[in-house]
Amino acid sequence: MASGSWEEFFAVHLPPTDFEDNRSLLKEFCERHDKHGNRIALVTSGGTTVPLEHNTVRFVDNFSAGTRGSASAEYFLEHGYAVIFMHRQKTLEPYTRHFSGQKLLDMLELNERGPNTTITVKPDSVDVLAPVLARYKAAHAAGALLHVAFTTVSEYFWLLRAACECLARLGPRALLYLAAAVSDFYIPKDRVPTHKMQSESGAPVIQLQLVPKMLAPLVSLWVPSAYVVSFKLETDENLLVPKARSALEKYKHKMVVANLLQTRHHRVVLVKPDASQEILLTREDVHAGVDIEASIVNEIVRLHTAHLGGPSAPAAR
Amino acid sequence: MASGSWEEFFAVHLPPTDFEDNRSLLKEFCERHDKHGNRIALVTSGGTTVPLEHNTVRFVDNFSAGTRGSASAEYFLEHGYAVIFMHRQKTLEPYTRHFSGQKLLDMLELNERGPNTTITVKPDSVDVLAPVLARYKAAHAAGALLHVAFTTVSEYFWLLRAACECLARLGPRALLYLAAAVSDFYIPKDRVPTHKMQSESGAPVIQLQLVPKMLAPLVSLWVPSAYVVSFKLETDENLLVPKARSALEKYKHKMVVANLLQTRHHRVVLVKPDASQEILLTREDVHAGVDIEASIVNEIVRLHTAHLGGPSAPAAR
Repeated sequence: MASGSWEEFFAVHLPPTDFEDNRSLLKEFCERHDKHGNRIALVTSGGTTVPLEHNTVRFVDNFSAGTRGSASAEYFLEHGYAVIFMHRQKTLEPYTRHFSGQKLLDMLELNERGPNTTITVKPDSVDVLAPVLARYKAAHAAGALLHVAFTTVSEYFWLLRAACECLARLGPRALLYLAAAVSDFYIPKDRVPTHKMQSESGAPVIQLQLVPKMLAPLVSLWVPSAYVVSFKLETDENLLVPKARSALEKYKHKMVVANLLQTRHHRVVLVKPDASQEILLTREDVHAGVDIEASIVNEIVRLHTAHLGGPSAPAAR
Repeated sequence: MASGSWEEFFAVHLPPTDFEDNRSLLKEFCERHDKHGNRIALVTSGGTTVPLEHNTVRFVDNFSAGTRGSASAEYFLEHGYAVIFMHRQKTLEPYTRHFSGQKLLDMLELNERGPNTTITVKPDSVDVLAPVLARYKAAHAAGALLHVAFTTVSEYFWLLRAACECLARLGPRALLYLAAAVSDFYIPKDRVPTHKMQSESGAPVIQLQLVPKMLAPLVSLWVPSAYVVSFKLETDENLLVPKARSALEKYKHKMVVANLLQTRHHRVVLVKPDASQEILLTREDVHAGVDIEASIVNEIVRLHTAHLGGPSAPAAR
């Protein structure tokens, strides 16, 4: 079945319940940073879900822990960008991504002395935690990082459009880094059953519909001057660059970051209208814990600066 | 399409790659606690996934943050049980469930003094964190808590059977608290495509197959003397108790905890062969942050003790 139009999608799917709150936050954030002439990067991260029931027990999900997006957000902040981090609920977030809850508890030392009880971080963990904590606190103190969260594909699209409407005022200073793994498919509202599907009635057949390609109105209508980077995740090497290039020709944006599921943490290809450029980590880099996102963001910031027509990158924090 | 047998499921699906490591951990844990005459609760938690591709980009998921299982594990530990916490990767875990990563970072104060930098928990957060941290450290120091993690439904079944094989030696001192949201459906191995489904070929139709009911061999063959509690999550009140009762008649275990998606945090029905018993939190309880799992576990521990034929519950920690 063919996909409906994007206008139809927004007409059929209601905005999420906390939509107005998020819209206000986005508006305030963009206005404030626009006033200071800052650049803003919108970083989307994590996968979207497609509910199989209205009272959702089951859903189709897209694989993504949020590794790419959460790491990239940190590097954009280091380059002096303000960052809207639009992420799937419960996936990795900038700074906290370095420590699971259990790892953090294990770092703590409890000194029980009744009303004078204190908790300190063990000396050998301070080295690891202190630099991350310092950057976390600096980003929040500067009001440079805004979190907004989605779960379903419909929530994602509502937030994405709202963010674009606010970002439009920044013109070319807005950068969109669309790393979220967005579902290609959904189940039309009128075919979603109200209650949990019963296994007694046999195994169900799920008929999915194609999601409209939001990149089309995004590039041509919502933020026509912004620097837009999209992502392609494939599992077949032969399709990787051809599919990225055809997306670029179709939507006319600035770059597709193409990556294979199997090698995505140490290799990506930046596909631009005029050229392709591979970024590859060495085995030593990987062992040393180097994030490939540092190189990806570095290169994109360089290109964004050139796109803005000047050598003047914002001051690194 | 009908479900295959459980033997067939294990014959067709290979064990997860880290299976032998987990089996060794389970074996050591059960032997050690058996030697001390301890009770062990196996708590399963979180939802299972059903991959739609071999190189998994998309999967069908069951809704569960792991709230019920992670809270219950803490209460079993407080009642002196050793706990195997078998959970979906990245869902809530005992003790850390109280604090998201960001909440923990916000509690920390950085005192930068070069090589003498220290990090301390802010005084007003100590009151909240100290009791949880004390219980976390006590459980780990006593070797009373074992974590094992799954993602797919097949990994879950392999781990579940391995845990049962180790728990069998404890006889009636083993308690199974099967709170995980296990998929009823899966896609037969030979129908899962190798590569990411391409949206160009149109929206796919996903034909699912019923998962075999593992509760049948579990109760009758794997741990015939254990105290087995299963869970039913429904969205339709009218089906809630009838479905729980019919499961009980079919599998002959000790209890079904029946709950509705909409009200599960303040109401459950404990359905036993001879009676049903509702547990309901008042609005005041909910506002005060009382966990309904405290009452559920309390009641189950009482019944387990009676089942063991004596009033002697293990000493509370």
